[in-house]
Amino acid sequence: MPTLPPRESHGQSSQKKVAVLGVGRVGAAIAIDLARTYQVAALDPNAQSLKPLQGYGVEPHIGSAADGAVLKSFIENSDLVINAVPGKIGFGVLERVIANGKNVVDISFYPEDPFLLHALASKRDVTAVVDCGVAPGLSNMFLGYHHARMQVENFSCYVGGLPRTRTWPYQYKAPFSPSDVIEEYVRPARLVEGGAVVVKPALSEIERIDFGGIGTLEAFNTDGLRTLLTTMKVPDMKEKTLRYPGHGECMRILRDSGFFGTEPIRLAAGNSVTPLEMTSRILFPLWQLAQGEKEFTVMRVVISGVKKNVPVTYTYTLYDEYNEKTKTTSMARTTGYTCTAVAHLMLKGKILETGILAPEQISRDKKTFGDIIGYLLGKGISIKFEQAP
Amino acid sequence: MPTLPPRESHGQSSQKKVAVLGVGRVGAAIAIDLARTYQVAALDPNAQSLKPLQGYGVEPHIGSAADGAVLKSFIENSDLVINAVPGKIGFGVLERVIANGKNVVDISFYPEDPFLLHALASKRDVTAVVDCGVAPGLSNMFLGYHHARMQVENFSCYVGGLPRTRTWPYQYKAPFSPSDVIEEYVRPARLVEGGAVVVKPALSEIERIDFGGIGTLEAFNTDGLRTLLTTMKVPDMKEKTLRYPGHGECMRILRDSGFFGTEPIRLAAGNSVTPLEMTSRILFPLWQLAQGEKEFTVMRVVISGVKKNVPVTYTYTLYDEYNEKTKTTSMARTTGYTCTAVAHLMLKGKILETGILAPEQISRDKKTFGDIIGYLLGKGISIKFEQAP
Repeated sequence: MPTLPPRESHGQSSQKKVAVLGVGRVGAAIAIDLARTYQVAALDPNAQSLKPLQGYGVEPHIGSAADGAVLKSFIENSDLVINAVPGKIGFGVLERVIANGKNVVDISFYPEDPFLLHALASKRDVTAVVDCGVAPGLSNMFLGYHHARMQVENFSCYVGGLPRTRTWPYQYKAPFSPSDVIEEYVRPARLVEGGAVVVKPALSEIERIDFGGIGTLEAFNTDGLRTLLTTMKVPDMKEKTLRYPGHGECMRILRDSGFFGTEPIRLAAGNSVTPLEMTSRILFPLWQLAQGEKEFTVMRVVISGVKKNVPVTYTYTLYDEYNEKTKTTSMARTTGYTCTAVAHLMLKGKILETGILAPEQISRDKKTFGDIIGYLLGKGISIKFEQAP
Repeated sequence: MPTLPPRESHGQSSQKKVAVLGVGRVGAAIAIDLARTYQVAALDPNAQSLKPLQGYGVEPHIGSAADGAVLKSFIENSDLVINAVPGKIGFGVLERVIANGKNVVDISFYPEDPFLLHALASKRDVTAVVDCGVAPGLSNMFLGYHHARMQVENFSCYVGGLPRTRTWPYQYKAPFSPSDVIEEYVRPARLVEGGAVVVKPALSEIERIDFGGIGTLEAFNTDGLRTLLTTMKVPDMKEKTLRYPGHGECMRILRDSGFFGTEPIRLAAGNSVTPLEMTSRILFPLWQLAQGEKEFTVMRVVISGVKKNVPVTYTYTLYDEYNEKTKTTSMARTTGYTCTAVAHLMLKGKILETGILAPEQISRDKKTFGDIIGYLLGKGISIKFEQAP
């Protein structure tokens, strides 16, 4: 039984109610963090997922947010909703939360365009901050802050969550749903080059980058720009995923051979299977982080352009490790605490704009940006900043 | 319709009857070659496989050699049987051919030990030359010839059949059954080191070797020594398979992840599939040699040791290409013509010993060895010989 951390006093805020939808690794870290300050209830269809919340003052509810009636009744008395359900049901759940008139911070990373819900959110007077994790999320905030203060010409984000121990051939453990990882490797990546959106295959343009203390990693294109494609007018933008060298080649071999195929193949015995289902059954056990296995999250964001007629480059490097004391993965920490930093601001009435808000939009405000970075630093997450020249 | 080559006259031999079991690529090349001299009938369950034999004077029979009654009646009047059925039924078919008292040349490359049939073959007064392809087969003959004339200390065989065009990621087309290729990558490899049999994983000890005119290939362990493990007392023996560099790593990734697994996996829909079945469905179309696609076979055999108290090394390098005129692959040519060279000798009464005979046993005789090499050279197969020092 973990020690219950002291409930912090933020004046009246301790009376506020937060409803957390979905408590995978990240949702659980969010629920536990917010329960230090607020009254938190968590909804998940899987009783096993709710178990780790025991002893942290989170009220567990078994049920699915995908069920409209269950969702409505669960969020009815909340001051804020956190949407942390799996990506494939995320957009529908977000839409219902907004329709129910609830403010929401969203980290469910669905494939749909969240701005499709902007009119609904505005009409219902709802503030919905979407894609509010580490990347997308914090990465967007870096760009949003500087974009309001200079002419940005290039935005590059390199990000990955990796196990400390490298095991051949994948050298990888999935810090979130492994099916979402495969989805990342299949979905075409949208980049901005010379002011135009270009589409490249995921896993393309593999390059190697050295990180102090980690060593050489590889970076390849994935579809991570998301809301930035709509909100930012920057001539060159890319997001690349970081892995240990060799991983991308492995995944390209599998993908390009057809192992991620979703068309059923008819078997000799007469039944059918999609390659993706079988491949998932083979890979996911190999990608499972062991209990207590050390992992880390690394992100480098490079923003360059012109400020007051002078060329300038800002580089942020984030690094975080598995927290042995709280048994929280770095991916859950960096994604979850970006989300809770924003949740705190919303519950304190610091984010008043309504509609769909992308992270890069809320971080234009210096105080908001500073508060979020400060919150993450306070959690022990390392964020290094460099300016050149 | 191909031109029927002139039937050669070898005195009475043109009256002799040969029964060919199985006419895949190799079996077909054998049937066509022997039909130039003998009366040849071919048995195959697949009518499509019999079609390419039209116009070459081969009598086609639709039926399975795995059916004892069909087999018995098909081979009844033959002077010689060629066993070219798939490996998985090969041993059983060989046993029945011997039980029926027929001489046989066997290239079906089953996993079982052919010497288990030695007593039966001796009792039935049958000559059965097994593993009589290019490797195993010709490679064994090189060793058998020299082993009878020197003290052999090391035997190394490197062999592969490859497409001329290299396509990422596998850079490979299967010149024979692709399931037999996967079987080669799964079955543990038996080598001889310091006089003892050692077992290593297939695809292990990848090394790179340069071949003039081809470039750099990689070689890895496969279980190719077969009968040599029983017949030869040589301190160090290995057989390695040649591929374009990178292929072995691809196949290890798949194998070690579990994609060749034969335990059924139960799927969400309730049905089951073995990873191997699905993987085969994905890989085999990618490994299909296109009609007329250029391919080649390369083999290097290095035999070193001491002759008359002097260290000596003999190196044989075989090279053959797809024959555009006859539309015969190099793998069918090199495997098939080694088999037909031996078939000719048997039908001419030059191989009289009974029982199970391995290729290295028949090539002890200088005349036999010379006849076989001469037959292959006559077919346009390049075999280069070097001696050092």
